[in-house]
Amino acid sequence: MADKKLVEQITSRDEDFAQWYTDIVKKAELMDYSSVKGFMVIKPAGYAIWENIQHELDRRFKETGVENVYMPVLIPESLLQKEADHVEGFAAEAAWVTMGGGDVLPERLCFRPTSETMFCDFYSRDIRSYRDLPRVYNQWCSVIRWEKETRPFLRSREFLWQEGHTAHATAEEAEERTIQMLNVYADFCEEVLAIPVVKGRKTDKEKFAGAIATYTIEALMHDGKALQSGTSHNFGDGFAKAFGVTFTDRDNQVKYCHQTSWGVTTRLIGAIIMVHGDDSGLVLPPAIAPTEVMVIPIAAHKDGVLEKAKEVAERLGKVARTKLDDSDKSPGFKFAEAEMRGIPVRVELGPKDIEAGKVVLVRRDTREKIEVALDDVETEVTALLQKIQKEMLERARAHRDAHTYTAKNYDEFKEIIETKPGFIKAMWCGDQACEDKIKEDFAATSRCMPFTQEEISDVCVCCGKPAKKMVYWGRAY
Amino acid sequence: MADKKLVEQITSRDEDFAQWYTDIVKKAELMDYSSVKGFMVIKPAGYAIWENIQHELDRRFKETGVENVYMPVLIPESLLQKEADHVEGFAAEAAWVTMGGGDVLPERLCFRPTSETMFCDFYSRDIRSYRDLPRVYNQWCSVIRWEKETRPFLRSREFLWQEGHTAHATAEEAEERTIQMLNVYADFCEEVLAIPVVKGRKTDKEKFAGAIATYTIEALMHDGKALQSGTSHNFGDGFAKAFGVTFTDRDNQVKYCHQTSWGVTTRLIGAIIMVHGDDSGLVLPPAIAPTEVMVIPIAAHKDGVLEKAKEVAERLGKVARTKLDDSDKSPGFKFAEAEMRGIPVRVELGPKDIEAGKVVLVRRDTREKIEVALDDVETEVTALLQKIQKEMLERARAHRDAHTYTAKNYDEFKEIIETKPGFIKAMWCGDQACEDKIKEDFAATSRCMPFTQEEISDVCVCCGKPAKKMVYWGRAY
Repeated sequence: MADKKLVEQITSRDEDFAQWYTDIVKKAELMDYSSVKGFMVIKPAGYAIWENIQHELDRRFKETGVENVYMPVLIPESLLQKEADHVEGFAAEAAWVTMGGGDVLPERLCFRPTSETMFCDFYSRDIRSYRDLPRVYNQWCSVIRWEKETRPFLRSREFLWQEGHTAHATAEEAEERTIQMLNVYADFCEEVLAIPVVKGRKTDKEKFAGAIATYTIEALMHDGKALQSGTSHNFGDGFAKAFGVTFTDRDNQVKYCHQTSWGVTTRLIGAIIMVHGDDSGLVLPPAIAPTEVMVIPIAAHKDGVLEKAKEVAERLGKVARTKLDDSDKSPGFKFAEAEMRGIPVRVELGPKDIEAGKVVLVRRDTREKIEVALDDVETEVTALLQKIQKEMLERARAHRDAHTYTAKNYDEFKEIIETKPGFIKAMWCGDQACEDKIKEDFAATSRCMPFTQEEISDVCVCCGKPAKKMVYWGRAY
Repeated sequence: MADKKLVEQITSRDEDFAQWYTDIVKKAELMDYSSVKGFMVIKPAGYAIWENIQHELDRRFKETGVENVYMPVLIPESLLQKEADHVEGFAAEAAWVTMGGGDVLPERLCFRPTSETMFCDFYSRDIRSYRDLPRVYNQWCSVIRWEKETRPFLRSREFLWQEGHTAHATAEEAEERTIQMLNVYADFCEEVLAIPVVKGRKTDKEKFAGAIATYTIEALMHDGKALQSGTSHNFGDGFAKAFGVTFTDRDNQVKYCHQTSWGVTTRLIGAIIMVHGDDSGLVLPPAIAPTEVMVIPIAAHKDGVLEKAKEVAERLGKVARTKLDDSDKSPGFKFAEAEMRGIPVRVELGPKDIEAGKVVLVRRDTREKIEVALDDVETEVTALLQKIQKEMLERARAHRDAHTYTAKNYDEFKEIIETKPGFIKAMWCGDQACEDKIKEDFAATSRCMPFTQEEISDVCVCCGKPAKKMVYWGRAY
């Protein structure tokens, strides 16, 4: 039924995943390239997804006591250098403002790559007493990291994100907040984006610059590559010592604060595409779809069809984000367009349907067509959207599980990584040399040490020494 | 009743308006200074006001068909230079990124001071046919303008704003959109911020760099100075010609688009402070207040008081943004704090009130105390909030009208501007030399040529030649 012209322009997902991805971001009108190398334009269809992500996450954040703020975008070089590990981690990707108001600046200013230093500088003046704690602040903003290679949403020189930065009186409370926010991210990914994630801790090699512990949620894309989808860091009192973030406790002692940070970015849009998309375009989970239902009249010129379609769209507008496509395009073109944009349900309605008192619902994810009574359209669509949301998560989980392997020794590891894209669960001795070797040999990295540990064997998959942790390994975006 | 310690820290508004303003932004915890000169930290109480402004405006924008997007923050110098008037208007305040990823960049990149050039560059590729029009895009972001003198919210090197940028097939449609958005701003200011505004057109001297017409809403602050609170620009096809923004019309002719842009900024927070605030701190209109009602228990240690206060807060939470102050501070301190933060209504509730089945409502704006039956608290508070919103606008309008004068000749103008801070309505010949002279003599500017014209006299207030327009003049922020 779908119009060929529109569909033929997409590369097949199984033939060339990278090109398929690029085709979708363009054809679904999520983004466009700009005249600034490595920077992208986020178009309305893409930004509307980000707005829904913001709305859902912000609500969840605030339920845990988060307050939003806004910090200066430019960070003086001297501030950035106060925490040694941190500056080392970001120096190579920094963009520098060196001139302002016609003058060369006395000190160059870094466009924020992340704002730990700015929050710490603020907290060092803002926090005095245990009564001021905890501080649980977040900001929604853009950051710049001067990447060499860029890909839409996945890696671009500028991206949008939220960054939470907290300060606590005790180490325990900081650790609790770190895990709490990781859980907020994980629940959000599963419930809203229909993307199952593995929760775990990063190895020291992979942790954030300046953190004592980095926790992550790792998702598996359709091509079997991993995507780090959100991280939460516990800084201990390292930053507090570097910046003098202290408070007077109940016992009248001056103590250092314990701090955390956590963030997710517009790369989540890339995750949605790569987990759910197919050869007809984007497939959006209803919970995040800017338009959940598209009503398309068939033979709209015939008496009463357009009126009925409008009426159905209005009724559905009360239970879901609904649009009516009353443009002068052909129905086939409209179907293809709604498919390309990933709209979860389309409602087809023609003269024969009206006569029979029914409409046709078409699922975007399975292509299934369902005839329902016109009278019951609100309840049917509501139930169908819930069903789609649930089944999309189940399907993504089944795909993830079917592409999660275990390796007991290096030969097995090699065989899997070279022939079966996916996660590999394997034991690790805790030595960074083994991570380095695996990266060198297979371009794969430790994704995380999952909270749910299993004992695959008792020796390291790489060196054969006694194992300490089960690790998820994989090639990653 | 309010705690002296907190209140005494504010300078009197009538004694030193500038210091009073600075005191409020600090004591109401709206912002803080940062380690980067001219850049500020927007704290939770300030950012929550901005979130409400965003929420209300964004909803109104979308009702008119606006779609949100995101454009790159850095603009190549060559793009910025394409429209001659425009680059001249912003060159002096530009901040330049000259290094990225360890390298000196081949072309320096300007941190967006405004994004006309970026939108035009995008539209020049994005728009092909009349079917693509209109484009009605907007973005919420931060901009940098390297100001020499800065003041919190009113003028800072970085500020937050929205910038709408549209492209149309005809000049008429562009002009309609320009006026439509000005009306959205004016209605928002009056209905939500309780700030009356004068709508009008800027003179050529005061218009935006590159515009053929700039429209403005002008508000009067409590000290009698004007604040430009929002602008909407019609660019005609000037930018379209500079950037090649063309489309193929229904008649198969390639034509230039007609464009507009319009924006409001975080300076609206400054307007709220300066229109409504008093010697006890901020006074927020209910429609924009992050917390509309604060419930404060009196003698909270006594049996049942805290429980009752919680119950009242919960009931009120269903009709208004309500908080309960159950901290261990004294009631007097809590009153002063709620006043400083501008919370529209506080609810006092002690053992005697509970016994008598009543509560005390205290209006922030008038200090009026009202006893109401505990049973009716939801309806009483709802009605009171509406009343406050309405009366705050009426009071601001009365103040504005009482400080709006008319001058027929230069002596009258001089007498008023030197002794009576406010708007001056006076006739103008249309010659920029008269604007220059008034600025030189009195540091006053033409605020706008209001849509509602009056005939004060038939000659120019400055040169005595025949008058063309009635103009609002004033000193401004």
